[in-house]
Amino acid sequence: MSWTLGPEQLDDLARGAAILGTGGGGDPTIGRLLVREAMREHGPVTVLDPDEVADDAFVIPVANMGAPTVMVEKLPGADEPVAALRALETFTGRKADATMPIECGGSNSLIPLIVAARTGLPVVDADGMGRAFPELQMETFHVYGIPASPLAMAGEHGETCVFDTGKDTKRLEDLARRVTVGLGGGAAIAEYSMTGEQLKRTAVPRTLSLALSLGRAVREAREAHRDPVEALGEAVTGTIYGHLRVLFRGKVTDVERRTEGGFARGRATFAAFEGDSGLELRFQNEHLAALRDGEPICVVPDLVCVLEADTGEPITTEALRYGQRVTVIGIAAPEIMRTPEALAVFGPSCFDLPFTFQPVEEKLPI
Amino acid sequence: MSWTLGPEQLDDLARGAAILGTGGGGDPTIGRLLVREAMREHGPVTVLDPDEVADDAFVIPVANMGAPTVMVEKLPGADEPVAALRALETFTGRKADATMPIECGGSNSLIPLIVAARTGLPVVDADGMGRAFPELQMETFHVYGIPASPLAMAGEHGETCVFDTGKDTKRLEDLARRVTVGLGGGAAIAEYSMTGEQLKRTAVPRTLSLALSLGRAVREAREAHRDPVEALGEAVTGTIYGHLRVLFRGKVTDVERRTEGGFARGRATFAAFEGDSGLELRFQNEHLAALRDGEPICVVPDLVCVLEADTGEPITTEALRYGQRVTVIGIAAPEIMRTPEALAVFGPSCFDLPFTFQPVEEKLPI
Repeated sequence: MSWTLGPEQLDDLARGAAILGTGGGGDPTIGRLLVREAMREHGPVTVLDPDEVADDAFVIPVANMGAPTVMVEKLPGADEPVAALRALETFTGRKADATMPIECGGSNSLIPLIVAARTGLPVVDADGMGRAFPELQMETFHVYGIPASPLAMAGEHGETCVFDTGKDTKRLEDLARRVTVGLGGGAAIAEYSMTGEQLKRTAVPRTLSLALSLGRAVREAREAHRDPVEALGEAVTGTIYGHLRVLFRGKVTDVERRTEGGFARGRATFAAFEGDSGLELRFQNEHLAALRDGEPICVVPDLVCVLEADTGEPITTEALRYGQRVTVIGIAAPEIMRTPEALAVFGPSCFDLPFTFQPVEEKLPI
Repeated sequence: MSWTLGPEQLDDLARGAAILGTGGGGDPTIGRLLVREAMREHGPVTVLDPDEVADDAFVIPVANMGAPTVMVEKLPGADEPVAALRALETFTGRKADATMPIECGGSNSLIPLIVAARTGLPVVDADGMGRAFPELQMETFHVYGIPASPLAMAGEHGETCVFDTGKDTKRLEDLARRVTVGLGGGAAIAEYSMTGEQLKRTAVPRTLSLALSLGRAVREAREAHRDPVEALGEAVTGTIYGHLRVLFRGKVTDVERRTEGGFARGRATFAAFEGDSGLELRFQNEHLAALRDGEPICVVPDLVCVLEADTGEPITTEALRYGQRVTVIGIAAPEIMRTPEALAVFGPSCFDLPFTFQPVEEKLPI
């Protein structure tokens, strides 16, 4: 059933999106402010359940592309994602019937809402990552045969660029990344345009509602003086994600972070509040793997999320600081993201990580 | 008057284009072979005098973009420039009435002939550089108010990319250069689409015929055992270029060359056959300045060309080798390239050269 998303839900949505962002996807603060402003001017947004989208509808997903470390200084604008969508409409010669997130994590959950508010288009409750990932080809859309091309990019000074690399989405990622760097490290994109039939077959469904429910669970737990992590566990149960595990509780002892080739890459280490146990996280924009005492316990595509120990508030990779007290959790990825075809596109080997994927709920049975 | 350009004229044209290429613009050998093949299959090409082009005709110039050092290894193809033209037609929603060189020097004089042969379009006898220059904004088109945007680029695997940066052609150069590097260092482009009225106002006229006449002059001088440089001087006299000066006769003593940021940059030094005199050339794809015994005697936009001493055959920057016996000549650029507006776009300061432009014929009076 379609539902209406209004400004009063944005805080919860942004918090949940930051959890699904696994440290990346861009800090949702700015995105939230931009959506609020767009809704203030144009009203709330209609969210369509994927099942409601007509098979022959034309859907254009939108997002921002770039290193999160850059986007906290070079703030994304509200005009660019609309310009990207319009440029893709012009290029394809077809008007969009709806927009959709490409990536349901972090700021990129919110960018389609700006476009929806400003254009009057509905937004589909689904995405192609089921979390955040750093590269354009790391999409269930791509895994199940939808090309990202053509891709339209829009910069802050009205620049547009439309790429078409056919089925070679890796090549598209490389070319678009270069232009993103040339546009200052961040730009808006519209890509993976597809029909309703295609999205129902390839998207991770209902990830906007999931983000909303995760963000709400943390807030309500806080208000009721309950453990937010326990509440998150309950919110995940019964969804296609299904499982949540606490990976570690402790303090940040070191963060090594560099912005290179348009990405924020690095690692963070943590020490337990009690005992000698240690945790290491590896990230490329997003957290990719958690190693407890040297052993991988949660790796991509499963989600690794760092939360403030007291409040359950998610912390992005670029906001990690020495001394922060955190709870690190793992969330199981849905089955559509764990098939052999999917692991070949965003499993550990795609990030040069020498680990075999093992579902977090099997690695850490209750 | 329009005229027909056939395969029998290609050797002369390529030689003359290499002279106007001032060491760059891409080695014409490959371009010549591609044109010959296209003409073998599709017949000769119609060349239009700029005065014949209707004011409301739509002209799409084409070229290859990239470092000449790359293009001698990653050979350009015949499909890409046609694909670039077609992509720009699609983007602008307008069919081309003619094509034209963007750059009349080197391989780029010949690329429009491939497009003309394969599409049946006529080619206009004019260009926007009057020589070769390394960057997209270094065009009389740009100097006199025609934006390069939109620009369509095509790669060897069918990739296309359409950029639109409005009037900011410097930004376009930066973005397109990044994608060129991503496509392996070389790609075909279509840009500076314009009307017949605009081209008559902003192009350097009759540079294809000039290249043909320079190339023919060298060949005929060789056949008649005359000095090719003297013949070139006669061919230049009476054109809008007007003046030719011998800058140096001697041997190559050193070449320093590096491919960086998509460009071939460096310097070459020469020692006189007799006496202690020395010459230094600075280049970025093309020769930018000639310094005799430390003093600049011919600088951009005037043309510096290195010819084999015996044959008058032009030598590109990437083919310069220790020990080559050469004659270095300077050719005066036409007035349209020497205005204050033009010098602000491709004068010495645009290449970080600390020299003031002085016309070669004034610097070296006869």
